[in-house]
This record gives sequence, structure tokens and C-alpha cells, in this order.
Amino acid sequence: MNQKLFFSGLILMFALSAIGHYAHWDMIVQFVISAIAIIFVAGFLGKATESVAHYAGQRLGGFLNATFGNAAELIIAIFLVKEGLFDMVKASLTGAIIGNLLLVLGLSILLGGLKYKEQRFNNRLAEHNATLMVMAVIGLFVPAVFIVSEKFTFDKDQFLSLAVAGILIISYVLWLVFSMVTHKDMLADVEMAADHGEEPAWSKRNSILFLVLATVMVAFVSEWLVHTLDTFAERFGLSELFIGAFVIAIVGNAAEHSAAVVLAMKNKIGAAVEIAIGSSLQIALFVAPVLIIISTLFGNTMDIVFTPIELTAIGVSVFIAKSVSRDGNTNWYEGVLLLMVYVILGIAFYLV
Amino acid sequence: MNQKLFFSGLILMFALSAIGHYAHWDMIVQFVISAIAIIFVAGFLGKATESVAHYAGQRLGGFLNATFGNAAELIIAIFLVKEGLFDMVKASLTGAIIGNLLLVLGLSILLGGLKYKEQRFNNRLAEHNATLMVMAVIGLFVPAVFIVSEKFTFDKDQFLSLAVAGILIISYVLWLVFSMVTHKDMLADVEMAADHGEEPAWSKRNSILFLVLATVMVAFVSEWLVHTLDTFAERFGLSELFIGAFVIAIVGNAAEHSAAVVLAMKNKIGAAVEIAIGSSLQIALFVAPVLIIISTLFGNTMDIVFTPIELTAIGVSVFIAKSVSRDGNTNWYEGVLLLMVYVILGIAFYLV
Amino acid sequence: MNQKLFFSGLILMFALSAIGHYAHWDMIVQFVISAIAIIFVAGFLGKATESVAHYAGQRLGGFLNATFGNAAELIIAIFLVKEGLFDMVKASLTGAIIGNLLLVLGLSILLGGLKYKEQRFNNRLAEHNATLMVMAVIGLFVPAVFIVSEKFTFDKDQFLSLAVAGILIISYVLWLVFSMVTHKDMLADVEMAADHGEEPAWSKRNSILFLVLATVMVAFVSEWLVHTLDTFAERFGLSELFIGAFVIAIVGNAAEHSAAVVLAMKNKIGAAVEIAIGSSLQIALFVAPVLIIISTLFGNTMDIVFTPIELTAIGVSVFIAKSVSRDGNTNWYEGVLLLMVYVILGIAFYLV
Repeated sequence: MNQKLFFSGLILMFALSAIGHYAHWDMIVQFVISAIAIIFVAGFLGKATESVAHYAGQRLGGFLNATFGNAAELIIAIFLVKEGLFDMVKASLTGAIIGNLLLVLGLSILLGGLKYKEQRFNNRLAEHNATLMVMAVIGLFVPAVFIVSEKFTFDKDQFLSLAVAGILIISYVLWLVFSMVTHKDMLADVEMAADHGEEPAWSKRNSILFLVLATVMVAFVSEWLVHTLDTFAERFGLSELFIGAFVIAIVGNAAEHSAAVVLAMKNKIGAAVEIAIGSSLQIALFVAPVLIIISTLFGNTMDIVFTPIELTAIGVSVFIAKSVSRDGNTNWYEGVLLLMVYVILGIAFYLV
Repeated sequence: MNQKLFFSGLILMFALSAIGHYAHWDMIVQFVISAIAIIFVAGFLGKATESVAHYAGQRLGGFLNATFGNAAELIIAIFLVKEGLFDMVKASLTGAIIGNLLLVLGLSILLGGLKYKEQRFNNRLAEHNATLMVMAVIGLFVPAVFIVSEKFTFDKDQFLSLAVAGILIISYVLWLVFSMVTHKDMLADVEMAADHGEEPAWSKRNSILFLVLATVMVAFVSEWLVHTLDTFAERFGLSELFIGAFVIAIVGNAAEHSAAVVLAMKNKIGAAVEIAIGSSLQIALFVAPVLIIISTLFGNTMDIVFTPIELTAIGVSVFIAKSVSRDGNTNWYEGVLLLMVYVILGIAFYLV
Repeated sequence: MNQKLFFSGLILMFALSAIGHYAHWDMIVQFVISAIAIIFVAGFLGKATESVAHYAGQRLGGFLNATFGNAAELIIAIFLVKEGLFDMVKASLTGAIIGNLLLVLGLSILLGGLKYKEQRFNNRLAEHNATLMVMAVIGLFVPAVFIVSEKFTFDKDQFLSLAVAGILIISYVLWLVFSMVTHKDMLADVEMAADHGEEPAWSKRNSILFLVLATVMVAFVSEWLVHTLDTFAERFGLSELFIGAFVIAIVGNAAEHSAAVVLAMKNKIGAAVEIAIGSSLQIALFVAPVLIIISTLFGNTMDIVFTPIELTAIGVSVFIAKSVSRDGNTNWYEGVLLLMVYVILGIAFYLV
């Protein structure tokens, strides 16, 4: 999209979102405007991240991409945690994980696969991603089984949740050390989305300024968006669960979705896989644990127990994403399968 | 078996089965005669399919083989659905899936492995089969978890079952497009059972005629067989579950079993794997969904919820079959493991 | 450790343990002394096994290593079974399996990986280990699901447990035939720990004598150790479950642990993996079934039903160990992940 047009849209939607919130416009109108604004702002955040990444180098750039790509999700979730809306937080975490593993990955693989008969990427990275996905599932399943099966008291529940949260964060940080320091060459031939070889439009100083500005904008629009959710849910007869697992997840990840699809169609499937799977790993191994710790700071610890249907959704998504990506090559049919599983989960969650 | 002898046996058993049914012979006698007759008729169906396949070409031939191989199963199941015997239908679907993945595959791998130290087959096909097996398990597990865990009303249960059934059928049809049209070369070096290089005994016209005739014969003998099951179960103290999951499955798949074993012992392990796994995939992704849709046409929708023990049986069968076949080579010990799991499930189901 | 020093320590601790038991010293003092004694005696058993293995040849040597490495575990468990302490038996079996798959394997891979950037081993063996691990999990899960879900009577429970136990033992024996007779070349390039190329210190006759002596010593110290457990558990507020799953498992496997770690740091990661995974397979496929059969000889059949948290612990350990070892190469981060899962399970079991 033409840059002038994009920035005009960005500023317009942001302004409308602000006005709509403070002038108390109709909630549904506010929701629509904020949702569109989030997409623009997330796109702005994406551009700023890419620009900073260009100066920071490939690996760090990819990491920044994945991290700030989850920024919108994380900020929305912090607001929900502050309000004590734990069920919707977990629903949106579930939605982010399955949305990345099934919708983003599936769409990228399908559209890339319709263009190129077969697309290949670094097998070693695929193996590591698979092991990390198993780790994430273990981190979310084990506490739930113990806490429910043995009927842990509230104290023990909180303690185990915090302990596991800490362990998952440590695992994630050590993964960064492993993949960016000690073994970066082993995983190095995944082309990072950041590096397009072109000269970025902004200077280093401006890139960092815009990154900060974009993050602040995401924070505001997220708060206005969350504010409209109750009414939106009521009006359309959608459960909080569905809003969290599908609506918030899709809106919050919009910029990421398009980035991955575009890369896949440019035959850079490795980068698309890295964005999709890397993003879902970060949510399970970093964002979720961080939220549990933040909730303790707010004085009301959120536990790590997801519901059976959420755990099932995460489990099956990891299973099929692992199976599809393990061999280091993809085709259109594998994309179709991922999307089909997403549709099955969507219908199931809608009916709850 | 000598052709004259075979056709004599076929006509004799078919006639006896018919007489036994209309003359109301003792139920146990009828059961034994019909069971033997089913084996002959399934064999006839197999020959006719191979003959048609010879004219239709390798890939389409293999597909026809798998499809008409399941014809007996499907027809028996339609009669059970019409009678509203949903529990026995699901038991026999479970039995067909685990029978193919464990008994047929296990026996083929074991007997082939005793002859040849190691047998290899197309790795790419194995990878795709593995992913499709994961898809099948997801399609059967997810609805069950949601419907039971969230206590879905009957309406929602039916809706989700029909929706998932439709999605599984679409996935299967697209798999046919993928494997026979867009990517057939990638999966092409699996020798199809159809092509033995010999001139078929029947002309194209006769082959198709015989295929139709054989299918009609299967339909009749199936009806007579199903008619005897209640008495057979009572007399021998076997539960409906065991009859469905083991007796019907073994009898209905008899011809398929021998075909796969014969191929494995001729060192065509790829074709044996294709028959066994391809058949179980077809049952999970096509036959089961089709039965759900047919049941709706009969006015009483069968839902897609299998019992915990049935889901466990299907799940573990997929797990170990995946693990054994994933690397594209087999040996006698892997065959033993598959058969051992089948025995464990057999004892467990018998005790229920 | 210097040999003279080792044998001095061995004889001293053994004597103190004997005296402490018969003179009724304070239970905690007895526990500490017996625990240290067990470690010495297990080390003695290890040396004797290595020596015998040197004369028996590579493959048989590796098998002896794994078998006698579990001797301490097995003997302690037989005493617990005799006392009817089935819950603690199953807890210690669980602890042995997860201890090998996570603690031993994780520590070996981590420490080896800090020294060598990447360590490789026989891929074919890894594939077979993965399939056997799936078999073990199936053998433990399926009975539990059937017995609990269908509310089996005590008789059926016992029958299924004994039947599955028999099938698992047969599977294990056939695995020995497969890996040591029919297909030993395929799995042959795993260097066995037994063969260091040096001349052993003891003659063949002495090696066998010492092996018998060491086994007898393990038997005695185990009995004295088990005798102190109740008091130890009370004094420190630890549950029987935690004692079984962590304390007994770590103490009983101490010699094995150090052997595997030392091998990994000598860049013989294949042998370390063989010890760790081979040992846990032996416990699931041989020791557990044997205990069930022995319990029947004592007149009170132990069933094969593990608790949900034990099954979850075993399941996740198998999952992540499989994922880490499947590709035939390891690095320090994979070791970290295995240890992290062990810590999560440790905290969870402690809180129960």
C-alpha cells in the first residue's frame, strides 16, 4: 500500500478511535473503528520493527519482529489481567497460539504452495521448533493435570503456576542464547524477513522513535478496544470465549498474518514458518508466563490452568503443525489441512 | 487359489447363505455360512477391482482397490445405521481402523520381514500418511472433547458432528486431488497392487460388470450376516462392542488382509502399507463422515462422539503405526509390536 | 576415584549400614548411611558388570550394563511389593522412568553439549527407541483407560494387568532377539560403555564372583534402606509419592547417572543415550511387568493402573525425550529442556 495512503489511514483511524472513546459513541461503532485502527497501528509497528531490525542485523531482527509482533496481544492481555478477566485472557492466549499455528501458517503454506509446487526450509530449525512446541504443551498441560486431578488448594495452585511460569521464561531466554549466540550458524540459513536488501526509508534514530511511538499507539487503541468487548459480545450473541479465542486473536495478529503470507508467496517459506511458529512459541513460553507474573504484581495471581477444550485446541494445533513442518518442506495440501483444523475449532468454540 | 475352485466356492457359499436366510436355519449356522460367504464375495470384489484397475491405470487403480476394499464395511455399516445401531457402527468403524493399522499392517510387516531383512518404501508418502492420520484423530477427538466437556445439547452435538463430517470429506477429496493430480509424481514410486504386468483374465466390459455384480452380492450377504449378530453375541457371551470391533472388522476386511500380506511377501511392502494405512485413513476421513450424513437422510443423525475406550484404541493405533512407518523402512520386530498392541486391545475390549 | 579409596569406602559404608540396622540407630541416621552405601554398592555392581561385559562382548555387555544397572531398583521394588506397598512401587517405577529419560539423559546431553558443540549417534537406534517408548506408554495407558473408564471389576483388572504384563515381557525378549541376533549390525555402531579397550583389573572368574557378591550386597542395603523410609517421610513432611518418585529413583540410579554423564563428556553420547533410554525402556517393558507377576506369586496381584499424574509424568517424559533424541544429534539446549521438565514434575509431585 502506498505510504502516504497508509499513514493517512493510520492517523485518521487513530483519531477516530480516540474521539469515539472519549465522546462515548455507540459501542459497536467504537469496536469497528478500533479494530480497523488496531490493524493500521499493528502495521505501523511492523514497519518500525523491520526498520530497526535492518540496523540490528538478521537474527536480532527476526527476534524483534516476533516480539513486537506479539506486542499488541501482550498489551491487550495486560489490560484484561488488570480487570481480572482471567478467562478471556486465557481464551485469547489460546486463540493467539492456534491462530498462528493454524491460520497464519496454513494460509502461508496454502498460498505459497499454490504458487510453488514445493517449498523447502531449514530442517534443523524445524526439529528444534518441534521440540520447543512439545515443551510448551508440557508446560501448559502438566500443571493443569496435577491441579485438577489432585484437587490442589488455591495456594498450591498459585505456587505451581508461578514456578512453571518462571521455568518457561528461563527456557525461552536460554533458547535465545542458544539460537542467537552459541549455535546461530546451525540455524542461520533462514532468511529473516527484516532483510530485503533495500535501503530503509527511515534513519536509525527515526526508526527507534517510530517504534516507541507505534507501541504507545497500540497501547491506547488496545485499551479502547477492550472497553467495547462486553457490549459487542452481547449484541452478537457471541460468548466471551469465542471473542477471546478468535476475534481478539485475529485482529491482534493481523499485521503478522499478512507479513507471513507475503513472504510465503515470495518463496521465503522459512521466514513465514519462523514468524508463525516462532510467534506461537513466544506466546506459550514467554507471554503467558509473563502475564502470570504481572498478575501477581496486581495482587491477584492468575493460575496456569487452561480449560480442557483450550488445552485440546492447543494440543491438536501443535500436533498437526509439528507433523506438517517436521520434514522441512511444504505443499498446498498441508496448508489446507491446517486451515481445516482451524475451521473445526472455530465451529466448536462458537457452539460452546 | 485355482479360479474354478474359487468360483465354485463363491457360488456355493452365496447360495447357502441365501437359503439359510430365507429358510430360517439356525442363527449360528447362518452366521458361519455368511461369514465364509463374505470372505469369498470380498475376494471376488477384490479380483473385479484389480481387473478394472488394470484398465484404469496405477493411481486410480490403487484408489479403487482401497475404496472397494472398504465396500463390504460400508454396506454392513449402512444397514446398522438404518437400524439405528449407532454403538455397533462406531465399534465396527473403530475395529476397521485398528484392524488395518495393527493387524493387516502388523502381519504384512512381520511376514515380509521374516523373509526380507529390511524392506523400504517411499518416505514422502509415509510423511503424508502420518499427517493425515493426525488429521483423522483430530477430527474424531475434538468434537468428543467439546461435546462431553461442555455438555453440548443434542442440537449442537448434531450440528458439530455434521460440520466435522463435511470437513473431513472435503479434506479427503482434496487429498485425492493432491495425490492423483497435482503431486502424483512425488508419491509415484509406490507400486500399485493393481499392476502385475499380466494380462487380466476379463475384458474391460466384463470387469465392470463383475464389479457391479460383486458389490450387489456383498450387499445381500452383509444384510444376512447382520441379521444373525444378536443371536451370535448372546450365544457366545460376547458384547456388541467386541462383535463390532473385532468380529465384523476381521471378517469384513479378510480379502484386504490377504492381499496386503501377499504383497509384503513379494517384497512390495509399499503397496501393503498403502493398502493398510490408506484403508484406515479412508474409513476415518470418508466412510465415517459419509455414514453420519446418510444417517441424517434416514432422519436420525448419528453423532461423531466415540467412547473413551474407542478413542484410546484409535489414538494408540495411529501413534504406533505412525512411529513404525515414518522412516520408510520396516523389519519383523515392528510387525510384532503392532500385533502385540492389537492383542492388548483385543483382550481389553473382550473384558468390557 | 582411586580404587583403594573406593573399596575402603564401600566396605566401611556397608558395615555401618549393617550395624545401624541391627543396632537400631536413629532412623534418619540409618537412612543417610544406607543411601550413601547404596551409591557405593551400585558403583561396585557397575564395575563388576563392566568387567563381566568385557569378557561377554559389546552387545551382551551393554545389555548386562542396563540390566544390572536396574538391579538395585528391582530389588528395592520386590521388597516393597512383598509389603504390599503398591502405591510406592508404582511411584518408584514412575520415578525411575522419568529419572532416566529426563535427569540422566538431560544431564548427560547438557554436560556433553557444553564441551562439544554437537554430538551425534546412530539414527536407526534412535528410531527404534522412539517406537519402543511408544509401545511402553501404550502398555501402561491402555489398561488404565479401560479399567477406570469401564469400571472393571477387581477380577478383570487383575486379568488384564497380568495379560498386558506378559505381552510387554514377550515384546522385550523379542527386542533382545532383534537387537542382538537378527539385526545387530544395523544397530552396531553404538559404542558400548563396556569396551574401553583397557585390560580389566579382574579375571573372568573374579568378575563373575564380584558380580554375584555385589548383587547380594545391593539386596541387603536395599532392605535396610526401605526399612527407614516411613520415618524419613514423616520427619521431613514428604509424601510417599515424592519419596518413591524422586528420592528412591535418584538414589537407586546413582551409579548409572554418573556412568552416562562421564560417557557423554568423553563424546560417547550414543552410549549415554543407550544407558538412559535403554534403562527406562527396560523398567517399563520388563521390570514393571515382572513385578506384577511376582506380586501374584506373593498372593496379592498388583494391578497395572498408574494414577493420572504418574501417567502424565511418564507420557510427557517419553514425548520430549523422543523429540530430543529422534534426529540422532544433541546439543546443550536439549539437555536444558529435559532438566526443566524434570524440575516442573519435581515441584508438581512435591506439592501433591
